[in-house]
Amino acid sequence: MATFVMQSLGCEVAAINTVQLSNHLGYGQAKGTRATASEITDLYQGLKDSYLDSFDMMLSGYLPGAASVEAVGAIARDLKYKATMKPGSFFWVLDPVMGDNGKLYVAEDVVPAYKALIKDADLILPNQFEAETLTGMKIVDGESLRLAITKLHETYRIPHIMITSVKLPIPGAVGSLSVVGSTATSSFQPRIFSVKIPAIDCFFSGTGDMFAALMLVRFREAVTNTAALMTRSSWISEDDVEATKLPLAQATEKVLSSMHAVLTETKGRRDRELELYDRRIKGPGEGEKQSRLVKTKAAEVRLVRNRGCLRSPGVLFRAEDF
Amino acid sequence: MATFVMQSLGCEVAAINTVQLSNHLGYGQAKGTRATASEITDLYQGLKDSYLDSFDMMLSGYLPGAASVEAVGAIARDLKYKATMKPGSFFWVLDPVMGDNGKLYVAEDVVPAYKALIKDADLILPNQFEAETLTGMKIVDGESLRLAITKLHETYRIPHIMITSVKLPIPGAVGSLSVVGSTATSSFQPRIFSVKIPAIDCFFSGTGDMFAALMLVRFREAVTNTAALMTRSSWISEDDVEATKLPLAQATEKVLSSMHAVLTETKGRRDRELELYDRRIKGPGEGEKQSRLVKTKAAEVRLVRNRGCLRSPGVLFRAEDF
Repeated sequence: MATFVMQSLGCEVAAINTVQLSNHLGYGQAKGTRATASEITDLYQGLKDSYLDSFDMMLSGYLPGAASVEAVGAIARDLKYKATMKPGSFFWVLDPVMGDNGKLYVAEDVVPAYKALIKDADLILPNQFEAETLTGMKIVDGESLRLAITKLHETYRIPHIMITSVKLPIPGAVGSLSVVGSTATSSFQPRIFSVKIPAIDCFFSGTGDMFAALMLVRFREAVTNTAALMTRSSWISEDDVEATKLPLAQATEKVLSSMHAVLTETKGRRDRELELYDRRIKGPGEGEKQSRLVKTKAAEVRLVRNRGCLRSPGVLFRAEDF
Repeated sequence: MATFVMQSLGCEVAAINTVQLSNHLGYGQAKGTRATASEITDLYQGLKDSYLDSFDMMLSGYLPGAASVEAVGAIARDLKYKATMKPGSFFWVLDPVMGDNGKLYVAEDVVPAYKALIKDADLILPNQFEAETLTGMKIVDGESLRLAITKLHETYRIPHIMITSVKLPIPGAVGSLSVVGSTATSSFQPRIFSVKIPAIDCFFSGTGDMFAALMLVRFREAVTNTAALMTRSSWISEDDVEATKLPLAQATEKVLSSMHAVLTETKGRRDRELELYDRRIKGPGEGEKQSRLVKTKAAEVRLVRNRGCLRSPGVLFRAEDF
């Protein structure tokens, strides 16, 4: 998902596949292999050996255990170190994939591994549960969300934060969800904006990776369009830039518009497929499990056929002050 | 390379990475891992377990050993078997990657493994050396090339054959190379065409995979545009279709036009990069090896930035009778 999105938008990608599975875990079963931490380290060493380690950006996503989180952290630190003399020439987007909806789906030792790592990231993309896990704070309303973001900026010195899929009981916001972001000021105060998007009543897999990959590309694009920002460390905007005018906010508008278009198309296709599936005559021995698997497949994100939505999204949503 | 090419042209791809290496072997060194035969088999079983094994086409490429060649063959046969009642609904493109320029670069037991396998393929894409290896015949001129293709059709019952990069001492063909293809008639006689293309004076890696992936997409497209061909077994054209009018020939014209455009762009970029590299002041301890590695990197195919050349190539080359 992430590799194709970045390539579609013109990035040359060196991908380290940390897992090779037959399918995503939404199916409840999968076969395949996970890369060990030393295999990850080895691949990076191979790149270095042949002078193939010049990268502008790095995106790290799902990692199967604490050791591989540390291995990826070591790669990012090495790339950061190389870029020390050229501020803004390397940028690390870290998606601290740990769980969702109140549940961890990685090993427990992954949590402290990420806590030790995120202070070196330029942009982190936790969902609401992951933000709670990283800060130890429960997010129940706008105020606690603001406190959690402030803590991430202050405690971990993270320049940019995006909290993906915030579900808060906000009056009048039925059927919608919010994405909330912030770029720190020079004194590590938050500048928070939010983008409200309509919820689509369907469970999709891989949307976190899609968001991360789109964000990487669109944020760099927005920074490139802002005079002198590309050579500032971590691309942190001047203090007088308001929240909704941040390059991060501009990027988020485009990212969510692309995603909404792709997922709306996917939902339509999935509904038509399920209608046909429910209508047809069942085969012998066809049970509950098969039906569940077929329904999961029907909700697979239609990315390739909707790649036009990635390249030139009409902007459907606007960032608002939080 | 192959996955991105197919995705760019609208295919949903389930990729089994048979190797995960830091770089291609043109660098003379690489780190990484190779999938075992049982890992390959396992991934396919995982797909089957979740009803994710509905494929229209399969492309098999580089495989590190005889056991993995056999594992991939078993997958292809299983998919063929499932398609028995619907002729033309599954098509296998097999690139028997074994070597080039007179040299094997796989283990010796890979050769008999491919010989046992190719009779089940719909289209094979050997280069000149691989065609020689499969037939046991030396290709030295047009006549021996015709004999080798005839033998592949007759002995192995292969419907479609493309011999990629034929280098023959043809008078007046200096600075060019040919791609020679054939679709068998119902009596397994060859219908041979050739497409001559200008040679580009540079060694590129991954062009075999690029050719294979483009061919898969463009051949299916040409077959779709031919009435009733899609439901014929192995998409074999009626006996009265001439060589240069074959869908395989039409596909080849488009494939080579895309490749020529991408590789010409790549060569231009590479030359400019090398010029800058040669002019700059050398760092301390910079030797022969570093220079060789940098030059190899400069010749990496610029695929992502030239993906427009994949989608809508102007046709530059025409198939001729052989």
